[in-house]
Amino acid sequence: MSELRQNIISSDWVIIAKDRARRPQQFVSSASASSPVPRHDPSCPFCPGNERETEQESFRIARQGAWQVRVVANKYSAFTPAGTKTRAVNGLFRSMSGVGIHDVVIEHPRHDLTMAQFSAEEVCDVLRAYRVRFLAIAEDPRIESIIIFRNHGEAAGTSLIHPHSQIAAMPVVPRQLRSRLEEAVRFYDSAGECVFCRTLAEELQAGVRIVHESPHHVAFIPFAALSPFHLWIYPRRHSSFFAGMNDDELDDLGRMLRVVLRKLFLGLGNPPYNFSIRSNPVRERDNEYFHWYLTIVPRVSRTAGFEIGSGMFINASLPEESATFLRDVNPETEAL
Amino acid sequence: MSELRQNIISSDWVIIAKDRARRPQQFVSSASASSPVPRHDPSCPFCPGNERETEQESFRIARQGAWQVRVVANKYSAFTPAGTKTRAVNGLFRSMSGVGIHDVVIEHPRHDLTMAQFSAEEVCDVLRAYRVRFLAIAEDPRIESIIIFRNHGEAAGTSLIHPHSQIAAMPVVPRQLRSRLEEAVRFYDSAGECVFCRTLAEELQAGVRIVHESPHHVAFIPFAALSPFHLWIYPRRHSSFFAGMNDDELDDLGRMLRVVLRKLFLGLGNPPYNFSIRSNPVRERDNEYFHWYLTIVPRVSRTAGFEIGSGMFINASLPEESATFLRDVNPETEAL
Repeated sequence: MSELRQNIISSDWVIIAKDRARRPQQFVSSASASSPVPRHDPSCPFCPGNERETEQESFRIARQGAWQVRVVANKYSAFTPAGTKTRAVNGLFRSMSGVGIHDVVIEHPRHDLTMAQFSAEEVCDVLRAYRVRFLAIAEDPRIESIIIFRNHGEAAGTSLIHPHSQIAAMPVVPRQLRSRLEEAVRFYDSAGECVFCRTLAEELQAGVRIVHESPHHVAFIPFAALSPFHLWIYPRRHSSFFAGMNDDELDDLGRMLRVVLRKLFLGLGNPPYNFSIRSNPVRERDNEYFHWYLTIVPRVSRTAGFEIGSGMFINASLPEESATFLRDVNPETEAL
Repeated sequence: MSELRQNIISSDWVIIAKDRARRPQQFVSSASASSPVPRHDPSCPFCPGNERETEQESFRIARQGAWQVRVVANKYSAFTPAGTKTRAVNGLFRSMSGVGIHDVVIEHPRHDLTMAQFSAEEVCDVLRAYRVRFLAIAEDPRIESIIIFRNHGEAAGTSLIHPHSQIAAMPVVPRQLRSRLEEAVRFYDSAGECVFCRTLAEELQAGVRIVHESPHHVAFIPFAALSPFHLWIYPRRHSSFFAGMNDDELDDLGRMLRVVLRKLFLGLGNPPYNFSIRSNPVRERDNEYFHWYLTIVPRVSRTAGFEIGSGMFINASLPEESATFLRDVNPETEAL
């Protein structure tokens, strides 16, 4: 019998297609016979030596005189950085000036590495850049929400090989976030606690979907995972505001993220994936009911008309099996 | 300056990336050098002669002694047709038995055609099958909502070439639909009319995003289109319930759908696409505030971490330009 599971965070139902569930091994990416990637590509705008080809740099981390991480304005920005926030209402046609910030985080000087291959310290450097930029952008009174995301692989929407992620700061609160806030407030008002904290406590007690634990974070496959190996990393300490983490927590998150990305890389054969960090709207920062978290979606299945038409997802894998599979991947044994 | 537009139906903001908008011609699919498709494939379970390979048939339309359309149970059903609807609550882990109906509509006996190449009568036959099955399934007291959808092309999530669509009948109302109903009720309570009817009236008056008009339907690119050539077909008459259309309206929709699919096929080079039909939850059928509609999403752009993390979309095309482009494609001139 097929099973529907409810994502308590969003109230979405997910169809766990048990009758046609595939084994975790069946999601291993068949590494396409791509040409080897050079350590340095003279034509890549993100490679050292081509710094002039990028837009305005807002932050960098340097090590031994050379940059390790650079944050630059996105050349193909979805938003316009200068200007004021103005709204236009013409009957039902409502629009707003697209002011906002769209950063690219160049994560590493090397062209041929992906984040799973970084050292823990190098992953932490990227997180430090996220935090610095998040805090700076949050000061801009035009900005209402910030989303940090990483696209890895062509199927996940990137064509640039050089390791990078993006920060998008918007003049609105996305409807999806607003809706999660509403659900979270409702839970808080009824149960007196944060629904994310409660979910984390119940997942830890159940144990079967936990992928990795660290002192400050837990990685798990949600009970109602939208797709195979859909994964959440929650901070243990209640916090709504991503950039509010302290240095210990940041270092811990860097190690955790590296472990999880290596497990995916090794277990699933370097699959395409997206990760994103959801945080509270910036004007409010912290509250008792919303919890920031990081979500990773390996792109090992396709969305089609059913998902577009219903907003629901069919997951052809069992979250418990996927978690067991990833738990068993040793992130350190094999050379990466 | 980039522009944000609000989809009044869902309250979602869409980013219209004007500064990096591409011309309509830039979305033309590069027809992959695929091997020619045979008129009949002996190994295809949907081809005539292989009727035994499909599951239980629930409906067929025959012409001159041979079937034209068959509706069969999906061999890889996301739902389990037999059984009762039961819920389990274990703390925050909420689940439900996945009872439901999952039909495949085999749209044509020929293996090598897609719906854009059907005659108008053949498209109408498919719609007749939708209506018959919709009405029959709506009688099942376990079912709360029905979604009809079509996946065309591999990037749109199908691997089967033989022309087919699907009907998924679920024991829940998807959160996305619930949320649109809530928005529609709110509008109705405040403005005293259906938000879809009002949108249609304003789109007709603006004129700039209309793609095609027929006596009973209007096809247009929404003001806040999620992606390039994202298209809606609305019935002119207010109706919440897709299967409530009469024969005239059905014939008109068939002709309209064919015209629009041909415009996409000819204008964009047979792009992959999904279409889906959104209708009111079946227990209620009709009300004053919700309007059924058909949505077509050509898969000419990719979603990535930004869309996953925010639920918002970046559209790198101008809806007005896309509509002009499609309006100018003559659906009949070129041989299809």
